[in-house]
Amino acid sequence: MTNVSLETIAHLAQKRGFVYQASEIYGGLRSAWDYGPLGVELLRNVREAWWQAMVRERDDIVGLDSSVILAPQVWVASGHVSSFTDPLVECTSCNNRFRQDKLESPDVCPNCAAKDPFTAPRQFNLMFKTFMGPVEDEGSVTYLRPETAQGIFINFNNVVRTARMKLPFGIAQIGKAFRNEITPGQFVFRTREFEQAELEFFCHPDEAEKWHEYWLEERMSWYEGLGMSESSLRLRAHEADELSHYAAATSDVEYRFPWGWDELEGIANRTDFDLKAHGEHSGEDMRYYDQERDERFYPYVIEPSAGVTRSAFAFLIDAYHEEEVREETRVVLKLHPRLAPVKVSVLPLSKKPELVGVVDEVADLLRPVWPIEVDVTQSIGRRYRRQDEIGTPYAVTVDFDTLEDRAVTIRERDTMDQIRVPIASLVDALRDKFAGVL
Amino acid sequence: MTNVSLETIAHLAQKRGFVYQASEIYGGLRSAWDYGPLGVELLRNVREAWWQAMVRERDDIVGLDSSVILAPQVWVASGHVSSFTDPLVECTSCNNRFRQDKLESPDVCPNCAAKDPFTAPRQFNLMFKTFMGPVEDEGSVTYLRPETAQGIFINFNNVVRTARMKLPFGIAQIGKAFRNEITPGQFVFRTREFEQAELEFFCHPDEAEKWHEYWLEERMSWYEGLGMSESSLRLRAHEADELSHYAAATSDVEYRFPWGWDELEGIANRTDFDLKAHGEHSGEDMRYYDQERDERFYPYVIEPSAGVTRSAFAFLIDAYHEEEVREETRVVLKLHPRLAPVKVSVLPLSKKPELVGVVDEVADLLRPVWPIEVDVTQSIGRRYRRQDEIGTPYAVTVDFDTLEDRAVTIRERDTMDQIRVPIASLVDALRDKFAGVL
Repeated sequence: MTNVSLETIAHLAQKRGFVYQASEIYGGLRSAWDYGPLGVELLRNVREAWWQAMVRERDDIVGLDSSVILAPQVWVASGHVSSFTDPLVECTSCNNRFRQDKLESPDVCPNCAAKDPFTAPRQFNLMFKTFMGPVEDEGSVTYLRPETAQGIFINFNNVVRTARMKLPFGIAQIGKAFRNEITPGQFVFRTREFEQAELEFFCHPDEAEKWHEYWLEERMSWYEGLGMSESSLRLRAHEADELSHYAAATSDVEYRFPWGWDELEGIANRTDFDLKAHGEHSGEDMRYYDQERDERFYPYVIEPSAGVTRSAFAFLIDAYHEEEVREETRVVLKLHPRLAPVKVSVLPLSKKPELVGVVDEVADLLRPVWPIEVDVTQSIGRRYRRQDEIGTPYAVTVDFDTLEDRAVTIRERDTMDQIRVPIASLVDALRDKFAGVL
Repeated sequence: MTNVSLETIAHLAQKRGFVYQASEIYGGLRSAWDYGPLGVELLRNVREAWWQAMVRERDDIVGLDSSVILAPQVWVASGHVSSFTDPLVECTSCNNRFRQDKLESPDVCPNCAAKDPFTAPRQFNLMFKTFMGPVEDEGSVTYLRPETAQGIFINFNNVVRTARMKLPFGIAQIGKAFRNEITPGQFVFRTREFEQAELEFFCHPDEAEKWHEYWLEERMSWYEGLGMSESSLRLRAHEADELSHYAAATSDVEYRFPWGWDELEGIANRTDFDLKAHGEHSGEDMRYYDQERDERFYPYVIEPSAGVTRSAFAFLIDAYHEEEVREETRVVLKLHPRLAPVKVSVLPLSKKPELVGVVDEVADLLRPVWPIEVDVTQSIGRRYRRQDEIGTPYAVTVDFDTLEDRAVTIRERDTMDQIRVPIASLVDALRDKFAGVL
């Protein structure tokens, strides 16, 4: 548990190279972010942990990687062309635009304080539009996917046929999605371009409620298993008027963000809405034939829909700690070792040339086993601070004694305990420390 | 080396669930493809092998993950708005559109054979256009990135500052790119949506030629190290009239595709074109300050630009073999074990219920270590055929003797040799076989 402010975590993330403002040299693109050297590794680790838990360790789920640009009929059938909209109003005084349903006060502009300034709301579709082929007209309009899920539904028959899956089973996908949000914001929390990790778990309609419960528990455990504090996680069932057009029931995994509880992951019972819609619009039979029951039916689907970028953000927030150490404030990211971008740092005590050889030797031992960072800049104190702030679980320090005793110091991030180990047994010592968590 | 036809490899890929036609139930989207359960694992393995070689195993390269949608000024500065075009002509008789520079005969329509039918060429920009925000006008136009490279260039200063990199160093990125190709085709070879793996390697201008040579060799070795046959790979330097607007020199790694030698990866010396252009357009100082030389200059950049999807396709083609075995043709994908989607299959000799327990036991032993597939459908012969066709290096067969002797048979994909090993030492036996290649 942590009480970091949004400003503090955003500052740290940008200072250390987790996140950069997108297109910054051109003044930035509003609410768009790029991921730097540490951010890209954090994202990779989140993806990998999700894929491991959802696909690799299970025999009832397979993966898929479908296109960002699908046939436009997909979005007609799914209801996105008609229903994936937000009510947009414009202030006639300052011309700023707002989501009507998010206005705190419906008759005063939050920007210029004009009274009763708003135009009548129009339904604004959140899908990014583009044109395929050399002519820009109605016939060439396509959309960037606003969710990865539809790429799964339209391939349902393909997966059943080629991977010979039997109910209940799931199809998992990680990939970018795009939503032309009217009011993105809160750092990387809500952005127009984001990365989803979605599972569509298909089952017999009679078993949908059971599987919905199952996946609520599984997904909570996933976050907790990667070190997220239980007191900052909760489940919240949607009220009837919050439900999406396709859902019979949805519960959100919520995280206690700096601005309060907010959605980390939605877990919906999408019923047979999507398969049926695609069956009807395409003319393909999207039902599943159950040999044992000798029954042909539309499966129900339970959808745990996580965000790679949003999860990474929550893990960062949750890992943030400030501690008083010798009358100074130590900032440390207590990231789970599986999520930490750098697993081990190698730090020579000084820049003196006599240490270079042994630092290289230690680095060469470690690099084939773990992602490491060799840091030779600045004072050793500042380098410990950097490694603490980027969440590196262990720092290996090479000092002048190393030249004599062929041993190095391992410093543990969370306890700051230090132990001295011979270089010859360094890899084994670190393996022991990582055992069961990496 | 292999002589498989495009039709044969495309058929195998679709039958086994590597690739599906995108939006197939809606009649398909021309030249767009989705990746099924095996395809997604192959892509993951290609990505991982690239990242491992280009980032993880080196201390002079860091990663980045930048946005698909960048500020439109980026594409003005990079020259894409003005120069990333193909000459488009239309047949006035059948209205089909073609790239003028790819027409075999400039005065006969290849579709309807009309003579002298073409309109004057117009320069068609290959960038997909979209609109950010709720108003579709010139001010809201943005583009989907046609290459991941520009996301790297505009973050050059950010990376130098936060990751404290010193020349020579590289920034690597894997991600989707989009090009509105007039004539996509040849299965997954040229598609409008594709995945790039690009390295921008920055160096002093005086060292650019040396690094260009270095990266030509490195990239050839990467393909060969993953089993691609040397006789199907070659380097070809671009002629002056082939060079892109930004390049001083480019060599392609070419692969002998079923239709002939074609580009697998382009390795360009982009000079200081991009950093200079962004410096001039943005007003930011994009030069690098070299402490040792006490010199401020625009670095040159060497760019090995690979395709994840295209590489995966070439690896598939290269792995394809047909062999005569007992007067039958065996089709086998001799994929490098690192690339194989499934590392070990577990096959009970029959569906009889007494084998279920021991099959589960074997699967539970292997699943935490490698991606496995348990296959209980059809005859054992057909299941070997499937595993050969998807490139699984080892098949573990559980038979009725297993119930007595607690041993199983390991069948090697390439040699079809079989050895019997106790279940208790199965993991170790497989580890030995994978040693040095996985």
